[in-house]
Amino acid sequence: MLKDLHGLFSPKSVTIIGASKSPEKVGAIVLKNIIDSGFSGQIYPVNPKEVNVSGLQCYPNIHCLPEVPDLAVIAIPSAMVIDVLGKVGEKGIKNVVVFSAGFKEIGGEGEKLQEHLVEVSNKYKINLLGPNCLGFANNSLPINVTFGQVVKNVGNLRIISQSGAIAASLFDWCQTTGLGFSEFITIGNKAVVTENDILAHWSSFSPPWTEMRGLSRVSPIGLYLESIADGIEFVKIATEISKSTPIFALKPGRSKASAQTMHSHTGAIAGEDSVLDTAFKQAGIVRCQEMGDFFDVARAFAWENAPKGPNVAVVSNAGGPAVLSTDTINQVGLQLAKFSPETQQKFIDFIPRMASFLNPVDILGDAHADRFGQALEAILQESTVDAAIVILTPQLMTQIEKTAEIIGSLSAKYSQPILCSFIGGGLTARGENILNEYKIPSFAFPEMAIKALSSMWQWEKWRQDMAKNIPIIEVPAIQDIDTVNNILLSAKNNFQRNLDNSSANNVMIAAGISTPPTDFFSDPNQATQFANKVGWPVVLKLSSPDILHKTDIGGVITHVNNVEELSLAWAKLSQAMDSLDEKIKKETIIQIQKEISVGVEVIVGVKKDPNFGPVLLFGAGGKYAEILSDRNLHLLPLSHYQAKELVQKSKVFTLLNGFRNDPPYNLDKLYEVISRLGTLSASSPDISEVEINPLIITHQGVWAVDSKVVLCNK
Amino acid sequence: MLKDLHGLFSPKSVTIIGASKSPEKVGAIVLKNIIDSGFSGQIYPVNPKEVNVSGLQCYPNIHCLPEVPDLAVIAIPSAMVIDVLGKVGEKGIKNVVVFSAGFKEIGGEGEKLQEHLVEVSNKYKINLLGPNCLGFANNSLPINVTFGQVVKNVGNLRIISQSGAIAASLFDWCQTTGLGFSEFITIGNKAVVTENDILAHWSSFSPPWTEMRGLSRVSPIGLYLESIADGIEFVKIATEISKSTPIFALKPGRSKASAQTMHSHTGAIAGEDSVLDTAFKQAGIVRCQEMGDFFDVARAFAWENAPKGPNVAVVSNAGGPAVLSTDTINQVGLQLAKFSPETQQKFIDFIPRMASFLNPVDILGDAHADRFGQALEAILQESTVDAAIVILTPQLMTQIEKTAEIIGSLSAKYSQPILCSFIGGGLTARGENILNEYKIPSFAFPEMAIKALSSMWQWEKWRQDMAKNIPIIEVPAIQDIDTVNNILLSAKNNFQRNLDNSSANNVMIAAGISTPPTDFFSDPNQATQFANKVGWPVVLKLSSPDILHKTDIGGVITHVNNVEELSLAWAKLSQAMDSLDEKIKKETIIQIQKEISVGVEVIVGVKKDPNFGPVLLFGAGGKYAEILSDRNLHLLPLSHYQAKELVQKSKVFTLLNGFRNDPPYNLDKLYEVISRLGTLSASSPDISEVEINPLIITHQGVWAVDSKVVLCNK
Repeated sequence: MLKDLHGLFSPKSVTIIGASKSPEKVGAIVLKNIIDSGFSGQIYPVNPKEVNVSGLQCYPNIHCLPEVPDLAVIAIPSAMVIDVLGKVGEKGIKNVVVFSAGFKEIGGEGEKLQEHLVEVSNKYKINLLGPNCLGFANNSLPINVTFGQVVKNVGNLRIISQSGAIAASLFDWCQTTGLGFSEFITIGNKAVVTENDILAHWSSFSPPWTEMRGLSRVSPIGLYLESIADGIEFVKIATEISKSTPIFALKPGRSKASAQTMHSHTGAIAGEDSVLDTAFKQAGIVRCQEMGDFFDVARAFAWENAPKGPNVAVVSNAGGPAVLSTDTINQVGLQLAKFSPETQQKFIDFIPRMASFLNPVDILGDAHADRFGQALEAILQESTVDAAIVILTPQLMTQIEKTAEIIGSLSAKYSQPILCSFIGGGLTARGENILNEYKIPSFAFPEMAIKALSSMWQWEKWRQDMAKNIPIIEVPAIQDIDTVNNILLSAKNNFQRNLDNSSANNVMIAAGISTPPTDFFSDPNQATQFANKVGWPVVLKLSSPDILHKTDIGGVITHVNNVEELSLAWAKLSQAMDSLDEKIKKETIIQIQKEISVGVEVIVGVKKDPNFGPVLLFGAGGKYAEILSDRNLHLLPLSHYQAKELVQKSKVFTLLNGFRNDPPYNLDKLYEVISRLGTLSASSPDISEVEINPLIITHQGVWAVDSKVVLCNK
Repeated sequence: MLKDLHGLFSPKSVTIIGASKSPEKVGAIVLKNIIDSGFSGQIYPVNPKEVNVSGLQCYPNIHCLPEVPDLAVIAIPSAMVIDVLGKVGEKGIKNVVVFSAGFKEIGGEGEKLQEHLVEVSNKYKINLLGPNCLGFANNSLPINVTFGQVVKNVGNLRIISQSGAIAASLFDWCQTTGLGFSEFITIGNKAVVTENDILAHWSSFSPPWTEMRGLSRVSPIGLYLESIADGIEFVKIATEISKSTPIFALKPGRSKASAQTMHSHTGAIAGEDSVLDTAFKQAGIVRCQEMGDFFDVARAFAWENAPKGPNVAVVSNAGGPAVLSTDTINQVGLQLAKFSPETQQKFIDFIPRMASFLNPVDILGDAHADRFGQALEAILQESTVDAAIVILTPQLMTQIEKTAEIIGSLSAKYSQPILCSFIGGGLTARGENILNEYKIPSFAFPEMAIKALSSMWQWEKWRQDMAKNIPIIEVPAIQDIDTVNNILLSAKNNFQRNLDNSSANNVMIAAGISTPPTDFFSDPNQATQFANKVGWPVVLKLSSPDILHKTDIGGVITHVNNVEELSLAWAKLSQAMDSLDEKIKKETIIQIQKEISVGVEVIVGVKKDPNFGPVLLFGAGGKYAEILSDRNLHLLPLSHYQAKELVQKSKVFTLLNGFRNDPPYNLDKLYEVISRLGTLSASSPDISEVEINPLIITHQGVWAVDSKVVLCNK
């Protein structure tokens, strides 16, 4: 449900509960910040012990306030917050900021306190920001409701941060670089108002941003999040916003192993963070890998428009850094633009003893500012150039400030983004200051500029892909939904957690997914007859609802070529059965299946992520799966086109597409099977996980050799 | 041959040929730089048009000089250099610096000019630095023989740079950070004096470095190289130096495809840059991936001692950056140190409302300088902590300068390295300046500090590994070297470029490497008899010295299970033969081989790198090789222990070591085969490349299923 947050972030009047005269107290600092920010609305300090604070009339309690203010700021210890919040609610105030720490983040008592906080907020329909947050600043109003040292530079950037510390660092950095904000919101424990509420609020109106010299045409949104409140909602809102506005995000926890119990390989292989990564990619969000990237990308999006394509031109007065740039450009998915003969002729005209007219353009160590300007302008006039990188090293003849000025004026004249790297220290800083004034992002080293540019292109490419007119291929419905439901019902009635092989196979067949000829016997002679009928070689495996990882207990024997090998395999499996727990043994039988010996093994599965819902996994299967790290995820639902994309970005696609003299495998059938599995997993609330491993793709068809269906735990 | 470079880099007297009064000329700048650097030896300006330059007597030519100076600096246009160099040689001057550009780097005429330059240098045994270089500075003499703005900070760092521009940037950066040099040498086109000469020169004496407050105990060496002069020599010298002194290097060209013709898969898979990477690793050299890393690592090695182990403790006044650090620590091969109960108790004593006593230590946003100090000291007193990272964000209570002072004094008290990240801008810069004075490296973001630390640990770990007492296992000699030589001789006499399958097989057998039972027939009935004898299934393949990639032309048929399948396969191969060129067809026959159906396929090969000599490749084989990127290289020679290490760091080792319920494969035999292949490739100068692909490892043995031997092209 969309919360109306205008009163919270653009209040006309505000009361500070706990306003103080002691300058080190939070209640004093926030009051001073609100006054200093130039807030033009009413300010009501509340403190029973004071009559006058900072030249403003002070009220003993909120009941005495002459009006119902849009916003209440609570700057008192956590133990007293609940009580005050109730009074705030009674007064009819709908928006509250709580700075105080001592809630959920300390566990135990704090957790209970936060629950009360949420109850009271819900009771009075209060939009509560925090607790345990630094507050927010809205430079476009303006108002600064924080107890930090907020940068006053007005700009187009919007930030939601779960950490006050990162906000403090970012403010200090912005003061130096001149990067400006529109809104900066810290959400702390986000007990009531979450990032989703704020994103929805922002997407409900055009940003209050007016064109400013040097800024990009968007109001980029940066997210620092340690958790996502509601993944499915988040993806929905973010996808809508990304169509017009870049979102970039920093989220720690890449290396943290997921704490959840793993029920099948899909779980084991697809860790929590890779699901998040997938969600970000699908929603067009640029994920920053490191803190530095977050700062770099913020400035790039705020000051430059995203490039319309991946073609970069580099101008440098130094060969070494130019070559290093080439390495990085290739690595991050950009490419060097190719120049027309006309442009090459321009270089010949103004670059002495030019060794090469290729990109990067080495304008040599003795280049004055004018040569930088000529080269950059020649490049920007090229229709093939989507973005320019300018590299400067402080050599004897280098005119650092003048070069920065020239870049600044060219930036205003041409539409492509320009990113700079003036490599050095004190000397180059003087040039960077000028670039900052022109709002041209500069970076300590060229690699950083290139990475920031690639993040911008990642967003723009996502937009271009979204705008494509992709023909819709109907995802097939479940062919025989009754059979599926009957099997699931019977297993549930039987208190099974997983389907046995036979039932899982039948579910696949009912869903329109082929399985190799298979049967279940208690007598090896019957098995031999079956093999003679379907053709050798065959596979023998144990089948039981209680054994999920048959291979691990030696329960799968492949390459059974003839009668002798079959009796040998039968004996081995019988022995393996004997060592099983009596209860499990009772449920276990031997399955025989025609072996699909020439094909590529893949894995396809669907597992429910607690935050982002069902996720489909596709990748290489078999024993190489574990060392290939070929994990390709997609949140459901998934269209036929997306299934195709998923397969084509996988590593195993190289083999599937026909490697060397091998003709291509039956890819169309594979896309269809992936779509069918997505549909199947959505067809019944009883299905918790499904997995086919291996699914074998041959030149003719696609075979679900081993299928698993895990039921919901209820 | 070791060049005596003392007179070059520590001259007692120097003449400047082309000394000038015009301040913008190189001949004027270098003279001024030498005088300003405080050089205490004799300076002889030479210029026929002047009597006096910069207050020094000027000589019309070098013949008039009152002595033979140690060093001549040539600061005149390239066209006149050869002539002057001859006169310098006649005078008996043994050391020369040539700044002038216009030599090999411009191609054509310049290339010839450089050849002359080398001839004249050789004739007079002149150590020539350059041409096309910025010169050098030796701060420990002192002397500054450059025409750049060299930083005068004296320190322990030594740099060899092929780029003058990178030198200029580094100087500017050092001026800001206070990082100091011992020697800085730019080598330009390195026509005579190369990086190898300078490294050998440095390793021939102890660095002239005296203990300075805050510096590390080493004189680290940084290399910026665009090419390596002599790879084999380079690895030898660098390995010796790395035992006591860290070397770190930046070398572009990671993404550049090798331009060489590829003769076999070993060539195709092992690109030039990965060989360089291997050479660096073997020599203990830390390779920097980006320019920023080079700057960061320089300061880390110059100011802090390398950690003795990988255990890092993090102190932070901000939770977010601390969690982000954890991600990076895991990613770069470091680990979080574990704290003893005593240390945890200390935290309880001084950190209020501590949520966790684990590492990273979050000392909370309201930490004053003393809490930073208490936490850092508690950590440094822990025997389990090898290094500390301090993260500071500028929050309301943060005492930035005072915290820097406290870190500075603790750094002097404890031996572990401390690296800092004060995240912000103008506010934090004041703290960073204090850290610089204490010689404590600080980084804009924590991830950079952690990466620099991991580079230091990489070097220290290499040293610890080198110091290990590893039992030597004799690498087996070639069992039947006569057979090998006879086969090679006969192929050479036959003008063969490659051995045919049969001969290659026999070479392997002679080298003590097993091959599956195999034979060559012209009649399918004989083939059937063979299969009945050795057992089905079998493999049929075309055998010809002219076909290197049999699979690509459909020349390999596997899984031949019975007589019917054999005649089918035979017909197919005969058909494939018919489509061959008549000349090739004449040399082609059908090979039959027992199929090794259960095992892990790997590739082992040796190829000669033009710069680093023979390189051994090991990795996953078969069709998965191309998507696995499992390329593990080692320069030859290679010990049994190194063969084992090579296998154990490979991706396919997970499978070889017994995956799931699979028992381990015959690894000892594999290590032996790899050693044998190394010996084989070194046994004859006629062998250019050898490769076994696939080599199949079973639980019992190791089988060279398909072998290739390429002869030298002469």
